[in-house]
Amino acid sequence: MRFAVAQSGGPTAAINASLAGVYEAAMDIRRKLEADGSPEKIEIFGVMHGVQGLLDGKLINLEDTLSDPMKLALLKKTPASALGSCRFRLPAPGTDESMYETLLDVLNRNRIDALFYIGGNDSMDTVAKLSEWLTKKGSPIRVIGVPKTIDNDLVGTDHTPGFGSAVKYLMTTMSEILRDCSVYQVQSVTIVEIMGRDAGWLTASTCLLRRNGEQAPHFIYLPESEFTVAQFLSDVREALKTHRSVVCAVSEGVSPPDAALFRSGENDEFGHAYLSGIGKYLEKQVQQRIGCKVRSVELNIMQRCSAHVASYTDLLEAERCGIHAGWLAYSGQSGVMVSMQRNPDAYNYEITFTEIPAAEAANQIKTFPKEWITPEGNQVRDAAIGYFLPLIQGEVYPDMRNGMPSHFQFE
Amino acid sequence: MRFAVAQSGGPTAAINASLAGVYEAAMDIRRKLEADGSPEKIEIFGVMHGVQGLLDGKLINLEDTLSDPMKLALLKKTPASALGSCRFRLPAPGTDESMYETLLDVLNRNRIDALFYIGGNDSMDTVAKLSEWLTKKGSPIRVIGVPKTIDNDLVGTDHTPGFGSAVKYLMTTMSEILRDCSVYQVQSVTIVEIMGRDAGWLTASTCLLRRNGEQAPHFIYLPESEFTVAQFLSDVREALKTHRSVVCAVSEGVSPPDAALFRSGENDEFGHAYLSGIGKYLEKQVQQRIGCKVRSVELNIMQRCSAHVASYTDLLEAERCGIHAGWLAYSGQSGVMVSMQRNPDAYNYEITFTEIPAAEAANQIKTFPKEWITPEGNQVRDAAIGYFLPLIQGEVYPDMRNGMPSHFQFE
Repeated sequence: MRFAVAQSGGPTAAINASLAGVYEAAMDIRRKLEADGSPEKIEIFGVMHGVQGLLDGKLINLEDTLSDPMKLALLKKTPASALGSCRFRLPAPGTDESMYETLLDVLNRNRIDALFYIGGNDSMDTVAKLSEWLTKKGSPIRVIGVPKTIDNDLVGTDHTPGFGSAVKYLMTTMSEILRDCSVYQVQSVTIVEIMGRDAGWLTASTCLLRRNGEQAPHFIYLPESEFTVAQFLSDVREALKTHRSVVCAVSEGVSPPDAALFRSGENDEFGHAYLSGIGKYLEKQVQQRIGCKVRSVELNIMQRCSAHVASYTDLLEAERCGIHAGWLAYSGQSGVMVSMQRNPDAYNYEITFTEIPAAEAANQIKTFPKEWITPEGNQVRDAAIGYFLPLIQGEVYPDMRNGMPSHFQFE
Repeated sequence: MRFAVAQSGGPTAAINASLAGVYEAAMDIRRKLEADGSPEKIEIFGVMHGVQGLLDGKLINLEDTLSDPMKLALLKKTPASALGSCRFRLPAPGTDESMYETLLDVLNRNRIDALFYIGGNDSMDTVAKLSEWLTKKGSPIRVIGVPKTIDNDLVGTDHTPGFGSAVKYLMTTMSEILRDCSVYQVQSVTIVEIMGRDAGWLTASTCLLRRNGEQAPHFIYLPESEFTVAQFLSDVREALKTHRSVVCAVSEGVSPPDAALFRSGENDEFGHAYLSGIGKYLEKQVQQRIGCKVRSVELNIMQRCSAHVASYTDLLEAERCGIHAGWLAYSGQSGVMVSMQRNPDAYNYEITFTEIPAAEAANQIKTFPKEWITPEGNQVRDAAIGYFLPLIQGEVYPDMRNGMPSHFQFE
């Protein structure tokens, strides 16, 4: 058997752990084949830059590098996609099949039996379309999806690899920001803009800080609930009556209907409206309408690449998703995505690794549950803490070299 | 003897280690007094919110809390100013002395023998002025300055406590950003805006990444050298010929003469020019004039409060500065600032703790040496690496509680 594995979409701190997992599954399967006395061999290749790179036949033999256990270990702790990534959607089969033909040709030429695609809901669209098309063509090539996204917005899985590490980064940084913004005697407002265009999971997770006795963030604004600038200003004004330092967590995905220019996405002459996010916009509103000290912080790509504060639970789960994917392919499955199911009856956090049809996750968005949002729409209920808390447990310490983190890179 | 210690200016990851150091010096002095059979007692108080809080007589007994060794240990790892801070300048003595009278009154009422002020060049102005005024009045109260600033712009010391941790945060985050921004096949420009309004030390320190084999940042722009948007665009265009992903480190303090609107600080209708920094401005320039994928990242207050990646060397030095300050006061000195001198002849990094007149550091700015900047003004020479490298050695792991860092706070 010959495996090929690719990564797609935005980087995370855990996506390379899934890559390592698929590699380890291949090595496990080799051991099983040898133990069974099977003459079958297994090999594993990496595809550079996702399905776009696959079209160009960019394959490398992973064993050349990852057979070194030190490199494999370092890969698991390295952020972003070591194989490179792409943002690419396959056309609907039936409209233009030439791309599918090319992919089949590349896969056949390289005698690939199974393709693993690590990614989010766009990538699951690729898994669903390609596996369906290959089956229709009578090709035995299997396509398996491995979930990944810091946004946690994939349906069909309790949560996604990459999310826990993003939350852990967020909690670490937010707790430090809380110390920083409370040192002065003057009243101040701090607005932290958090990733999540369509779903507010990451922003909502800041409710976890309460578990460590923090009062902040005093408000949490999500795309899942109505949000107006007027309500925001009223909330902040009210909070300033009792708190010296007011902190708000705002999802980049909120879209206040009473912020015409911001919503329009129009550029002013210097393009600031286009470039600046909701945090800067709200900062300006506080400055103009309330007039107190105000600061906005955009946590930017650090949310998805801060492997130095990765969640050990997250990295282990990401790796196990990769391993599960390998065995799914070995057992002949195709068009499925690995899924994590949480045992609702277990006293301790307990995850079962299973699979769902990739088509079910493709292009869908799992939003943050309404029942975990307060009626005012500006805060997350305590009930959500139990969901988030297990995902950030356990520390991962980066391998340091000269006082700086050391990362894995393919040559 | 009664000590009072205060913190001032912007927070850092190491300023609480200096506070702990002064406390430890007091405990050391107590042991010495007891061993000597002296009847003298020593007590130590914390002043909330710097000299502004001192005017209001906001003193707390530090021993009530810090006699718990667990709390003292946690304090050293906690970012920002645990005693709170202020941005406050004393009027020139001779113009308005009422404030000095109030301070003397508060110090006398609390029977304080020595005031320790942990801060940057503004704080050293306070140390110099107050100590001079007290001496003139015949008061025996000593005033000792303890250096602190992530900007490293204090004269009279090899470097400042807080700087090493800021550099270590920067190296950690930059190395992760480098992984993140190189995953796609398309050409891209990433602009990282780094703190340092008057001096480029922090931005310059990104040359350290070279030590770990990184090619980026491809350009480093400092306030110390001429910087124009035209040159920036020309640099980037040139680099894009050979690099897929071009990364620039830009000091927030650069002031391109050919960026009229940006320099003017004027607000457009929505105030974006005022709110946005040089990073966003340059991002827009690349977007309009070069047209490739571009992103700017503002590392914001995370640069000064990220204690979870503090430099162990930095925290130890900050603590020793505090200890040295305590003994300076005990030995009767006043109006001095603790200074770190690097032994230029030592094979290994070696620091001696000494002191200089606070007036020498007050209101002065130590800029990044011109001889470490390339003639083009867009890169830092390898010679600077040896200066920066020892400052980031050693890791500090935060005390975790529920998967999040635990911090010290005065009740």
